[in-house]
Amino acid sequence: MEKPYPTQNWTDDDHFHDECGVVGVFGHPEASNLAYLGLYALQHRGQESAGIVSADEGRLHAHRGMGRVAEVFGSREIARLPGTQAIGHVRYSTAGGSVLQNTQPVFINYRHGSFSVGHNGNLVNAQELRYRLEQEGAIFHTDMDTEVIVHLLARVSGNDAGERLSAALKQVSGAYSLVCLTETRLIGVRDPMGFRPLVLGRLIDSGGFVLASETCALDLMGAEFVRDVAPGEMIIISVDGIESRQPFAPAGRRMCVFEYIYFARPDSVLDGIHVYSVRKRIGHVLAQLHPREADMVVPVPDSGVAAAMGYAEASGLPFELGLIRNHYVGRTFIQPAQRGRDFGVRVKLNAQPDILRGKRVVLVDDSIVRGTTSAKIVHLVRSAGAREIHFLSSSPPTVGPCYYGIDTPDRAQLIAAQHSTEEICKMIGADSLGYLSLNALHEAVGGQEQGFCDACFSNDYPLPVPVTDTGRQLHLIKELR
Amino acid sequence: MEKPYPTQNWTDDDHFHDECGVVGVFGHPEASNLAYLGLYALQHRGQESAGIVSADEGRLHAHRGMGRVAEVFGSREIARLPGTQAIGHVRYSTAGGSVLQNTQPVFINYRHGSFSVGHNGNLVNAQELRYRLEQEGAIFHTDMDTEVIVHLLARVSGNDAGERLSAALKQVSGAYSLVCLTETRLIGVRDPMGFRPLVLGRLIDSGGFVLASETCALDLMGAEFVRDVAPGEMIIISVDGIESRQPFAPAGRRMCVFEYIYFARPDSVLDGIHVYSVRKRIGHVLAQLHPREADMVVPVPDSGVAAAMGYAEASGLPFELGLIRNHYVGRTFIQPAQRGRDFGVRVKLNAQPDILRGKRVVLVDDSIVRGTTSAKIVHLVRSAGAREIHFLSSSPPTVGPCYYGIDTPDRAQLIAAQHSTEEICKMIGADSLGYLSLNALHEAVGGQEQGFCDACFSNDYPLPVPVTDTGRQLHLIKELR
Amino acid sequence: MEKPYPTQNWTDDDHFHDECGVVGVFGHPEASNLAYLGLYALQHRGQESAGIVSADEGRLHAHRGMGRVAEVFGSREIARLPGTQAIGHVRYSTAGGSVLQNTQPVFINYRHGSFSVGHNGNLVNAQELRYRLEQEGAIFHTDMDTEVIVHLLARVSGNDAGERLSAALKQVSGAYSLVCLTETRLIGVRDPMGFRPLVLGRLIDSGGFVLASETCALDLMGAEFVRDVAPGEMIIISVDGIESRQPFAPAGRRMCVFEYIYFARPDSVLDGIHVYSVRKRIGHVLAQLHPREADMVVPVPDSGVAAAMGYAEASGLPFELGLIRNHYVGRTFIQPAQRGRDFGVRVKLNAQPDILRGKRVVLVDDSIVRGTTSAKIVHLVRSAGAREIHFLSSSPPTVGPCYYGIDTPDRAQLIAAQHSTEEICKMIGADSLGYLSLNALHEAVGGQEQGFCDACFSNDYPLPVPVTDTGRQLHLIKELR
Amino acid sequence: MEKPYPTQNWTDDDHFHDECGVVGVFGHPEASNLAYLGLYALQHRGQESAGIVSADEGRLHAHRGMGRVAEVFGSREIARLPGTQAIGHVRYSTAGGSVLQNTQPVFINYRHGSFSVGHNGNLVNAQELRYRLEQEGAIFHTDMDTEVIVHLLARVSGNDAGERLSAALKQVSGAYSLVCLTETRLIGVRDPMGFRPLVLGRLIDSGGFVLASETCALDLMGAEFVRDVAPGEMIIISVDGIESRQPFAPAGRRMCVFEYIYFARPDSVLDGIHVYSVRKRIGHVLAQLHPREADMVVPVPDSGVAAAMGYAEASGLPFELGLIRNHYVGRTFIQPAQRGRDFGVRVKLNAQPDILRGKRVVLVDDSIVRGTTSAKIVHLVRSAGAREIHFLSSSPPTVGPCYYGIDTPDRAQLIAAQHSTEEICKMIGADSLGYLSLNALHEAVGGQEQGFCDACFSNDYPLPVPVTDTGRQLHLIKELR
Repeated sequence: MEKPYPTQNWTDDDHFHDECGVVGVFGHPEASNLAYLGLYALQHRGQESAGIVSADEGRLHAHRGMGRVAEVFGSREIARLPGTQAIGHVRYSTAGGSVLQNTQPVFINYRHGSFSVGHNGNLVNAQELRYRLEQEGAIFHTDMDTEVIVHLLARVSGNDAGERLSAALKQVSGAYSLVCLTETRLIGVRDPMGFRPLVLGRLIDSGGFVLASETCALDLMGAEFVRDVAPGEMIIISVDGIESRQPFAPAGRRMCVFEYIYFARPDSVLDGIHVYSVRKRIGHVLAQLHPREADMVVPVPDSGVAAAMGYAEASGLPFELGLIRNHYVGRTFIQPAQRGRDFGVRVKLNAQPDILRGKRVVLVDDSIVRGTTSAKIVHLVRSAGAREIHFLSSSPPTVGPCYYGIDTPDRAQLIAAQHSTEEICKMIGADSLGYLSLNALHEAVGGQEQGFCDACFSNDYPLPVPVTDTGRQLHLIKELR
Repeated sequence: MEKPYPTQNWTDDDHFHDECGVVGVFGHPEASNLAYLGLYALQHRGQESAGIVSADEGRLHAHRGMGRVAEVFGSREIARLPGTQAIGHVRYSTAGGSVLQNTQPVFINYRHGSFSVGHNGNLVNAQELRYRLEQEGAIFHTDMDTEVIVHLLARVSGNDAGERLSAALKQVSGAYSLVCLTETRLIGVRDPMGFRPLVLGRLIDSGGFVLASETCALDLMGAEFVRDVAPGEMIIISVDGIESRQPFAPAGRRMCVFEYIYFARPDSVLDGIHVYSVRKRIGHVLAQLHPREADMVVPVPDSGVAAAMGYAEASGLPFELGLIRNHYVGRTFIQPAQRGRDFGVRVKLNAQPDILRGKRVVLVDDSIVRGTTSAKIVHLVRSAGAREIHFLSSSPPTVGPCYYGIDTPDRAQLIAAQHSTEEICKMIGADSLGYLSLNALHEAVGGQEQGFCDACFSNDYPLPVPVTDTGRQLHLIKELR
Repeated sequence: MEKPYPTQNWTDDDHFHDECGVVGVFGHPEASNLAYLGLYALQHRGQESAGIVSADEGRLHAHRGMGRVAEVFGSREIARLPGTQAIGHVRYSTAGGSVLQNTQPVFINYRHGSFSVGHNGNLVNAQELRYRLEQEGAIFHTDMDTEVIVHLLARVSGNDAGERLSAALKQVSGAYSLVCLTETRLIGVRDPMGFRPLVLGRLIDSGGFVLASETCALDLMGAEFVRDVAPGEMIIISVDGIESRQPFAPAGRRMCVFEYIYFARPDSVLDGIHVYSVRKRIGHVLAQLHPREADMVVPVPDSGVAAAMGYAEASGLPFELGLIRNHYVGRTFIQPAQRGRDFGVRVKLNAQPDILRGKRVVLVDDSIVRGTTSAKIVHLVRSAGAREIHFLSSSPPTVGPCYYGIDTPDRAQLIAAQHSTEEICKMIGADSLGYLSLNALHEAVGGQEQGFCDACFSNDYPLPVPVTDTGRQLHLIKELR
Repeated sequence: MEKPYPTQNWTDDDHFHDECGVVGVFGHPEASNLAYLGLYALQHRGQESAGIVSADEGRLHAHRGMGRVAEVFGSREIARLPGTQAIGHVRYSTAGGSVLQNTQPVFINYRHGSFSVGHNGNLVNAQELRYRLEQEGAIFHTDMDTEVIVHLLARVSGNDAGERLSAALKQVSGAYSLVCLTETRLIGVRDPMGFRPLVLGRLIDSGGFVLASETCALDLMGAEFVRDVAPGEMIIISVDGIESRQPFAPAGRRMCVFEYIYFARPDSVLDGIHVYSVRKRIGHVLAQLHPREADMVVPVPDSGVAAAMGYAEASGLPFELGLIRNHYVGRTFIQPAQRGRDFGVRVKLNAQPDILRGKRVVLVDDSIVRGTTSAKIVHLVRSAGAREIHFLSSSPPTVGPCYYGIDTPDRAQLIAAQHSTEEICKMIGADSLGYLSLNALHEAVGGQEQGFCDACFSNDYPLPVPVTDTGRQLHLIKELR
């Protein structure tokens, strides 16, 4: 019997990772196809799994699977999701719970009929709610905090789905942008602080409505931007039209600032702020904070490109693609034995000696998390002949983990939580290292008064974070794919 | 784009169908592999889907899929189901709910940890329990009655898993042979009337225990028969040994008599009665009840073989394989346009003119349900040149649907519930038609005092059957495979 | 990384194995669907791979794949094989060359257009022809002898496809029943000695023609039997009608006698002889040759059933199904460690202690090849309590390998070529052992004058067999599935 | 039955397309894994199919499949391709012949053993050679011109594989960069004019050799660049070392100039010329040829990026990413009914109104082929609010189809072959349109004296092109995937 070769997993790259993207469609004869296109545009928010639930004649239809949108959905699957309303979800590949059970949207049958929900975010009191619910007799099929929401929903009372959902959500604390589907309604909700984005659009051809995590999805769905769903707002769309509710006590807006630095697609506009422009402004500010005697500015593609362009513009240094990215990489690759330590990076990025040889390079990347990938990239650029490497991070030092829906390492693994800038510079092998300052970041996104969550840079957590696990371990039954 | 041809589904054959087979293993280093072999031997009880859940170091592992055991499980899947205890389940392909969600074993997380259950049978009060549970806030992921059991389990109290399971089962009414798995225990339960079979065996090599729907599974698992689980008995197997409990009030034993006629494998012994011998005795009795002037006895293979052998033995007529069965048929086949009405039968059975031409034939089949297939078979045999066809059914007329775990048509579709034997004889085109009598059936299985459920022949239902649906329709969200 | 469990291969059973089945259809709007049904009925002749080639508007369309007919062909594949003529092929799973390349029908483009052929049989001079062709510049894509035929075809001249095919076949020696397809013609050929069967039928609905290895395929295709293709006959079917040619010098008919004993389906009639009746007659003769004091006759299912019935009839002993076969076995199964030596047999067959305990059993199987399986079966029956086991083989001792299209072990592995009947009886653990005699076999099939090849029993080879490989090894490039 | 939705095929984009990439490895214990990595890096040269053939102990092993490298090869497939030498091939998805049969490397058995070849390029006399070969009795399994080469090889004589291959190639005319594998040798050949690239590298760890279409593959395989294989050179690598032969009469070097404009990866260096630098120089030249009063330079990503950067540098205009590319698109997508005419482009590209609104834009793309995509992109940019759009093509007008290995439309579909620049400008809806001139292109690649094929821009074909098909149509038997 052949011994299969070891397979490397791509998701091991050293970034914070968004956990989800969501879409909703109401009032279009090809609702599931539009949801599919919306997920296609939001694919950067999650590549682990994808799912769509549609509603047709009082019945919900679902399809979910592991993999990218184009792998999970073919024309046959879309044809089996009839109806004029649908929601969709893409999920990021976290190491542990990457199993079919954990795909979204979640869907259930309960005393009021059928209900489905797609969730972007993370609840901070999910563990204690789950404990309480289990004590009351609830049974759980997944380890997703989203399942807590549907259990609460099944236990509250209210005159309509919106009231019930409000009553359930009043018990949870955390980050959530939700799209929900009942037999007759599409509901969008954003948590009171608005950690994660959610936008409302109007379909140009049918006049129906769509919801999506980012505006870039509206463009492909054929919808025009109406407005952002406000923090704490619930939008209920039915054949009777669109209704806005404010079920929660007011709380300050705390939109995730990292969306602008890395997660969101550059062509999206979130809470009125254009992502690409933020990234270019970050480059301008970096040039002021960290001027360097250098021959060229080189981005780490793709996430460092806009900031590097901004730096080049502001500094007058030439902008060069000294690193070329291979866009054909799959989720895994097969590595031969005894390759160098930077091999994983090499599969994605190739350094150009013809550009870099003998040059002083300003190298711009979006962030430094564990520092491991940064060290490999510096080594790669150095091997290609660069004489000096001045590494700039277009975000401040990442010193705190996220509890609001972003996959981050523990604090102990965050290099900037443990080491000084000088130490990090030495550890990644650069000639100099510069970070964006927190103030400069606020300036680039338009001022602190806008209200952002920057806990990963500041350790200023807007909501109490869960106490470390009290010993009660979740033992989800593990189902194979 | 090519238009796919229409595909015929095999499951459309005209038999009653068993709904499930179950196995359990405790105390063997290759528990999931043994469970797989047990399901292999029980494959005749269900070909729609298969699943195994194993327990290893306090954690449950699951794999379930659509299709036969050999399709769902390869060596890779078995290797991913570690541990020394496991349960398994095969399910029959019913027309409607043939979806991935409805595969078993069911598994959940709840306040006492993890729990998994495989169920053979059917609850008669599932709908009302489900309604009550939903009112109390329960959410449902499937339309299986088994899900009601786990919801009840999560709401009762008790000192151990066995006590809690007893408390839950006291609320349900119906037929159930269950195998259950917790992190540390294998539990087998048979409902108070013992509608469906369940046997206990002991592994020859490891000394561990197994449970299975039929003894034929023991043989392949390498276990020797210990005894039948008694109606109303709960058997709890742990590292502390094996314990028997009697949690329910005594009720008369009412084992399903159809298991002996058709469902069970002929080499199984259920509640002390050898299936093959029953079928041969039925043949003997048929020969007394319905002697015929004929040239040969021909079985409809495979289910009519043993009874036909018995008839031949008792009558002295030659036994001939006038119908040959193709054992390589898959679950579906592609039929050209304009084939005759008996084409579906022809794909499975071929009549031999060299044997049948000009002959008077006693044709023995296990039962006549709707009558459609019987008519096709008679036509097939007639086309091959048989001069006279005397059709004998090795069961009494089927006049009532089953509510205890067998898939049967509505009463309106049961030909014997609507028509006299003379009418049926004419409808299926036979020269004469004879049924086994109910008394003779009792005699063949060893006497009425044994306690059987024969409601499908007698309309004598041991447990109240559910009132016709009160208008509240189950609308399960439909997930594609 | 999980270590997959070892997988056992079913094809390891101890029988001679037929290598192929072929069908052809001309003149039906759903030709590929009929070819599919024909292969369905011939599935017993080969389960490794299946393929169909159809002709439509002067163009050939092909689909071939590994696995059974129902796995390789769905409605989509059939829909992509348009046209009113088609040929099909099923192939037996040999251990070595089980690769996609070796699937049939073979199809090529050459100077006269397109040509496709399905082959049942084996050429004895393939190696030397291949050597000569390679010297002349031919390139080979497979290790099938059939590829030699198409190379010869491309090099000969002739006025039409039939003449060219005749010219090519005059150079080959061996066993072949061929179905061939050109853009406009269906051609069937049987080698001069007619080693392998081939029958002609007429479609009842369209009036078109079909060819098939056995008559059982005609029944399912909706065709009536016209006649056997004669040894040495070529049948050419086109829109101009059907033409018969006799391109070869006359040679005595030498139809494979093992077809009647084991390969063919019992309901087939080959060269005018009904297979099932032969098997029953063999049972009668066995009873005369080997009368036994016994309590019952038990067949090894399914191949021993008819002969056992014949033995029971002639001897007056009861016929009992002491071994039950599991018809749900897939091509492989996963075996736990440390199972007994007869485990492989146990997966397919279960012995019934309730029938066998304390009994003297006449056990009838079709043949004894290596003896390994026979020993396991005897052990199985003994373990179930049989007091005496009298093993009868419904064929004579197999003393020679086949070179004409049957997969057999080397002579060194044929137990009867190396050991006396007494020794074999001891080796398989039986109380007595009896073989059919060669004379009795001839009698059962209707007399020697019919002309059979019985080389595997007599070492009388009608055609010179290839000299042992002269050291030149075929090194086919191995392509993964 | 559900009607599947129509699926759009991505390959319909309006570019010339390279037909293949090749790699070869000799002298490394993980040769097939290195070949896999090489193909990974060459994935941009073909996404239709991928294949690897390895040689181990005198035997070749092959695996080929439809799809991208990461889809066709997993660790299991690589493990089944043992040996220290291997070749690999990726193929572009052309509309018609996208079938499993046409995957490469081709491999055969012939009188000298086994032989495998991967081919990048196109033969101009393949049809007439095939006709001649068929007359001589050759049979063809594919419609690839590469099959002609192996037929010739099987018919010539010579003292070793190199001599035979030379003798075969002397009969062909056209473009070919070949990697060939025998049981003991890796051979690389480049046609006398060197139309397609081929480079030689040395493995850093094992000292073995590699061949590849582009240098970017060397980097990932862990090899250092040795030199380009010269036009007309044959390199034979065996355990005896590396040998260079010049089997062909000298001919002027005519490397494909389009490799530099579009096909090759920017980080590759081909025949000593760095692709990225050529593209930037083209941008510089474009700025001199076509100065525009504008607010920004916007590339059509990814192929227009480097030229746009060059234009921005030379012109002093800001460089902006006004179009954002979605890199997660699969090979197909499902389009709802009634989407606008530019929908196909929208799935890949999104225009940023926040950047483009009210602006005068210089839009840089690599070429204009049919003009259809260019019109859609102009429309997209205009819809995002651009005030003026000045379209610049970084190649000269494409006026002639390619016969040397590039997939191009017929001349009748080449917009520049039919229309003036003014007409094209109007047809694509731009405010102005500028092409690179042929002279400027020569300047950018380093001067005409280098020797390029620019027939698609100049109609100056270095080799006679095939006369239009003489009515003899190739009717390949079509095998389904």
